[in-house]
Amino acid sequence: MFEKITIIGCGLIGSSILRIINNNKISNTVTVFDKSKDVVETIKKENLCSNLAKDIKSAVKDSDLVILSIPLSSYKEVLLSAKDSFKNGAIITDTGSVKKEVNKVFENFNFKNVFWIPSHPIAGTEESGPSAGFKDLFKNRWTIICEDKNPKKEKIEKLKKFWEFLGSKVKLMSVDEHDHILALTSHLPHAVAYNIVKTAINTDEKFKDEIIKYSAGGLRDFTRIASSDPLMWRDIFIDNSENIIKILDEFSKNIDDFKKAITEKNTDKLLKIFSSTKNVRKEIIKAGQDVKSPDFGRKKS
Amino acid sequence: MFEKITIIGCGLIGSSILRIINNNKISNTVTVFDKSKDVVETIKKENLCSNLAKDIKSAVKDSDLVILSIPLSSYKEVLLSAKDSFKNGAIITDTGSVKKEVNKVFENFNFKNVFWIPSHPIAGTEESGPSAGFKDLFKNRWTIICEDKNPKKEKIEKLKKFWEFLGSKVKLMSVDEHDHILALTSHLPHAVAYNIVKTAINTDEKFKDEIIKYSAGGLRDFTRIASSDPLMWRDIFIDNSENIIKILDEFSKNIDDFKKAITEKNTDKLLKIFSSTKNVRKEIIKAGQDVKSPDFGRKKS
Repeated sequence: MFEKITIIGCGLIGSSILRIINNNKISNTVTVFDKSKDVVETIKKENLCSNLAKDIKSAVKDSDLVILSIPLSSYKEVLLSAKDSFKNGAIITDTGSVKKEVNKVFENFNFKNVFWIPSHPIAGTEESGPSAGFKDLFKNRWTIICEDKNPKKEKIEKLKKFWEFLGSKVKLMSVDEHDHILALTSHLPHAVAYNIVKTAINTDEKFKDEIIKYSAGGLRDFTRIASSDPLMWRDIFIDNSENIIKILDEFSKNIDDFKKAITEKNTDKLLKIFSSTKNVRKEIIKAGQDVKSPDFGRKKS
Repeated sequence: MFEKITIIGCGLIGSSILRIINNNKISNTVTVFDKSKDVVETIKKENLCSNLAKDIKSAVKDSDLVILSIPLSSYKEVLLSAKDSFKNGAIITDTGSVKKEVNKVFENFNFKNVFWIPSHPIAGTEESGPSAGFKDLFKNRWTIICEDKNPKKEKIEKLKKFWEFLGSKVKLMSVDEHDHILALTSHLPHAVAYNIVKTAINTDEKFKDEIIKYSAGGLRDFTRIASSDPLMWRDIFIDNSENIIKILDEFSKNIDDFKKAITEKNTDKLLKIFSSTKNVRKEIIKAGQDVKSPDFGRKKS
């Protein structure tokens, strides 16, 4: 599919891509660069890649597909190093969760004969680092490809096939639509999860042990995503702050309505909310985006 | 342990208790009453109980332990039917999630020679009804027993042994402390989960399909508890509204701080929040209250 693929950043997402490429020959060479010594050590130890580049320039040289799997705040630095070494006609993509700001970074570089096409696989776990990756991460999940500024349909088609090869289903949309939808389905839940866990532990320091003990009543569900990679999430919240704040305002209005409903014992209103949210879960399961087993299958653990 | 045990209400919790009692002889008789014809049909079909009482009076008659496993708003009605039929010296307990209001209901009945000792097993799934119950539901979970108004230490001790027998660890605390802690660990997360799912689906009706599709980015975690039994949760929110509103106010303040931090690009503040919440999950796993497998073990599904 590609002569040479380069992965910059080999954490949960990068190493999952690497694992799939290793398992199935879709390029003659796959080269990895990661600036962290610990990550490089792990890649060597787990025998994940024999072409570990020493620097970004040599990593991207002659590469037909370059995948940035790094925090959003690192794009500029990586592009500064790579800019003169990209192969003519190369596709540059990424796996980041917000597109508008990094899109601007790319535009400022004003690349010629290099095709920047943002991607975002909606997949992941609360773990990070190369040991956390696994080859089924993208299976049955969606990857969004943003197509707005790219005129080369055949390059988009090629990238789409690549993601499908990794096990993903692919949807094309604009950068604006992506950043808005992800604010709802991912950034809002993460913002709320961090704040709910913070509220629970800070309200009463003296009850901290109790809160851990009785977390099975609901809180523990939120702690999973509130334990996601802090650096990655710092960047996401800052890059998509405009959308997130708009949605948090809407959310706060709903919370105020809810407070009113419970104070006034407005049982009809409460039942209406709870029934509609129950239906959403049914639809998510029907769409194959979550498992049906109760309690996320913890029952069997 | 008891000559006769009565379970009023045979949903997820009641039927789980029933399953354990059936599996291990701890009483000569176990009688069940449920006012729902569907529930009674299921109990018969699944062969869960041979002593199905026709009414509440006969259900509680001669019973040494009566367990109310019904919505909080039904306690009064059940007690009105049962009040003259309780055995002298019987323990009446429950499995409800809020204690202050139902405690008042009990006090108004002014029972003599009947021991009301509230219990609350911190266990459950998003499923409801007798088919959803299972005998390991309480294993390694905590049950809170409220002891404030009960002078008979030996009755509390007996109830404690009963819950331990069901697989639970037991903690004694006051009604006020229970309602406060549960507001943090269970009612706040549920209130937020319902509202976050509501916000996601209502903000843009035209994006509803997209929101289902890309829910694996975080939202789906919240839909699990937002699909819990609507009637049960309506009652919980109304009975514990005072505590919940206080905590929601605190939560809203944290959300406002968070908005300020992302607008101001206050990276230090964000990292500080995310690191502290990451630690909470570690402690919950260490305490045996959640599984360590990434993505709640969905990885393997």
